Amino acid sequence: MLDSVLEIALKAKKSALYLAGESNQQIKNFALVKIAQELQNSAEEILAANFLDCQESEGKIPNSLFARLQLGENKLKEAIRGIYDLVELADPVGRIELHRELDEGLVLKRISTPVGLLGVIFEARPEALIQITALALKSSNGVILKAGKEASNTCQILVKLIKQALEETEIPPDLVQLLTTREEITSLLALDEYVDLIIPRGSNSFVRYVQENTRIPVLGHADGICHLYIDKDADQQKAINIAVDAKTQYPSGCNAIETLLVHQAIAQSLLPALADALGQKQVELRADERVRQIIKALPATNEDWHTEYSDLILAIKIVDSLSEAIEHINTYGSRHTEAIVSQNQEAISLFFSQVDAAGVFANCSTRFADGFRYGFGAEVGISTQKMPPRGPVGLDGLVTYKYQLVGNGHIVADYTGKQAKTFTHKTLPI
Amino acid sequence: MLDSVLEIALKAKKSALYLAGESNQQIKNFALVKIAQELQNSAEEILAANFLDCQESEGKIPNSLFARLQLGENKLKEAIRGIYDLVELADPVGRIELHRELDEGLVLKRISTPVGLLGVIFEARPEALIQITALALKSSNGVILKAGKEASNTCQILVKLIKQALEETEIPPDLVQLLTTREEITSLLALDEYVDLIIPRGSNSFVRYVQENTRIPVLGHADGICHLYIDKDADQQKAINIAVDAKTQYPSGCNAIETLLVHQAIAQSLLPALADALGQKQVELRADERVRQIIKALPATNEDWHTEYSDLILAIKIVDSLSEAIEHINTYGSRHTEAIVSQNQEAISLFFSQVDAAGVFANCSTRFADGFRYGFGAEVGISTQKMPPRGPVGLDGLVTYKYQLVGNGHIVADYTGKQAKTFTHKTLPI
Repeated sequence: MLDSVLEIALKAKKSALYLAGESNQQIKNFALVKIAQELQNSAEEILAANFLDCQESEGKIPNSLFARLQLGENKLKEAIRGIYDLVELADPVGRIELHRELDEGLVLKRISTPVGLLGVIFEARPEALIQITALALKSSNGVILKAGKEASNTCQILVKLIKQALEETEIPPDLVQLLTTREEITSLLALDEYVDLIIPRGSNSFVRYVQENTRIPVLGHADGICHLYIDKDADQQKAINIAVDAKTQYPSGCNAIETLLVHQAIAQSLLPALADALGQKQVELRADERVRQIIKALPATNEDWHTEYSDLILAIKIVDSLSEAIEHINTYGSRHTEAIVSQNQEAISLFFSQVDAAGVFANCSTRFADGFRYGFGAEVGISTQKMPPRGPVGLDGLVTYKYQLVGNGHIVADYTGKQAKTFTHKTLPI
Repeated sequence: MLDSVLEIALKAKKSALYLAGESNQQIKNFALVKIAQELQNSAEEILAANFLDCQESEGKIPNSLFARLQLGENKLKEAIRGIYDLVELADPVGRIELHRELDEGLVLKRISTPVGLLGVIFEARPEALIQITALALKSSNGVILKAGKEASNTCQILVKLIKQALEETEIPPDLVQLLTTREEITSLLALDEYVDLIIPRGSNSFVRYVQENTRIPVLGHADGICHLYIDKDADQQKAINIAVDAKTQYPSGCNAIETLLVHQAIAQSLLPALADALGQKQVELRADERVRQIIKALPATNEDWHTEYSDLILAIKIVDSLSEAIEHINTYGSRHTEAIVSQNQEAISLFFSQVDAAGVFANCSTRFADGFRYGFGAEVGISTQKMPPRGPVGLDGLVTYKYQLVGNGHIVADYTGKQAKTFTHKTLPI
């Protein structure tokens, strides 16, 4: 354990606890605006640091990573606009979720509260730092950030500016902490006494490593194996458009599809046009035998149904029924986002209730599974766990709750035995 | 892995999935009533089986366990009444929690859904089986039950009757499964592909064993180290009543207090009367030096602040301030339930916001932390984890949610680039 990481965690935790004690919607929004202004005013400095990062990595990392590393004026502007969007959203903390009189003078409230201290490990993607920090602050959580090392110059200047902005507010700058070395990740994962939630983003193997190496609850997903099922009652043109979008609009997105399931009754007429459309986008097709009798494709093996390609590759399989599609999805899917194309309401209903995933979609692209598109302002990640928070996690997923019970000397002994008082359990206005 | 456990899990999972697909508030309530009637009609048979269990265990297990094992006419009646209470509660499944237009014709809903398949491992306490099964059914979850072996005759007859009752309904009897041997627990914990949530109840060491030996999410708590803090502005008589109730009303309850913190300004006047009242209930006191200068008590060691006695023992410590009390609680507490006695609203507010626990109470006993007393109908357990479900877990804690998105051919490509359509993000009525 690196001492420095423990110290950092203690500072952030203390600041978070301080923030939890304030009724502070205005203080938090004021701080968000200050941060946005500071970043705006220092745009040149930020972009210069990013230019340095890019110079050091150019040619050394894959193009897709390099594109993420590059901040640029537009991405920075968008990230700053995202902060203002968060200012507009309601405070997720302090919401009364339940208000009940248990008996005269004994009143129960369930109130949303911050999670506490978040540990967020993310890719070399500078605007993610801005987004995550703003979400953490708006939800009154402390945050320890660790970004991919390629972005270290950019991230250091960003955190410096954020802390400078907080200096001018009532929020302790220690709320936001940055780790700079890979070794510190191990120390962070060991801090289960102080860190309340770890949010890892990045490669599947990295997320799995985190899940297996910490006792801290982990929010996120290792795999994004999403399916599109084209039902016999599908509108074929919509099906093709959606398939192309879900596969090619951003193939490395976790909400892109990996496998297409086609009902046998529609396969003959649909597949040739579909293969054409996907071919125009350079998608490599891998398919089962029945598909390959209709269109040209490489043979798919069992391995393919398990694979997140994150690339312009699509596995295709013919199914005999909606139930077979659902069973395939529940077997091979990663509970992320699953879609059906159908004009049949009953088929959609069955798909929605039987498919076990954070998102079930009908007649639209899986690529909509995203905190911004859902209207959450932004997201820290997408959770594929069964228990909440599930799906894209924005502000609402970064709070938990507490039960507050206020009495006037009430004791349980009075509610037991022969003379037991009874509870009123009366709902009170929220 | 015992094959039989896998088979049992597959059957229960299939039934749960079937139930997830039905709009079934009435079907579920009908089944609950059928179960209640079947148990009522077979009361003699149940009590005879329990008599057998008790005969076999008499003198072989501690009195407290034996008392829990004994069902008796009253406990059975109460458990059956509990089923009718659940019938009255709203269906926790299918609730629309968010309803939003993302764009014209593209509508997002967040809907509460069952968790899926629960594995509940509990003590030799027959009425718990009835309560847990009824909660699982009402929340549309499948359930695999494993009760303490001392109750095996009673549990077998109970499950037989419950399945008989379900035969007369549209709900597959396979939804409810009973494991009978201890070895099966290991197999159950390995079924992370099928079981969605494990709820262990019992000794701290057992719960910790479960937490460390499964990849399935675990809901519950190992320790119940609860504190009562008596503030300088406390009403002393109320403080004494609450302390006695919180310690002695049911000392083996997880919501009983283990440590009492007393503000120094009130210690001199409060402690003698408090010691008297606790002494009358045979409570053994262990205290720090400052307390022992005022009243008679054994010396407390650091170990005591960490200990859940589950017995008539209470540790007492004098603190110099509210903040010291909060820090002690956040250090040694198990995030279960923490209480303050004070007439000072500011002190209560600070305690409520700064103490990190599922329940924060003012001027009432910690013993109120209970699903039934909170008006949840019943509870499967109390969760001390930070993320939801937290605190007493009733119906609301046994559901999760799913995002449903319905479009009309919508693709993400239309919302990017120069001609990008914008999202409307319009809230729709629920």
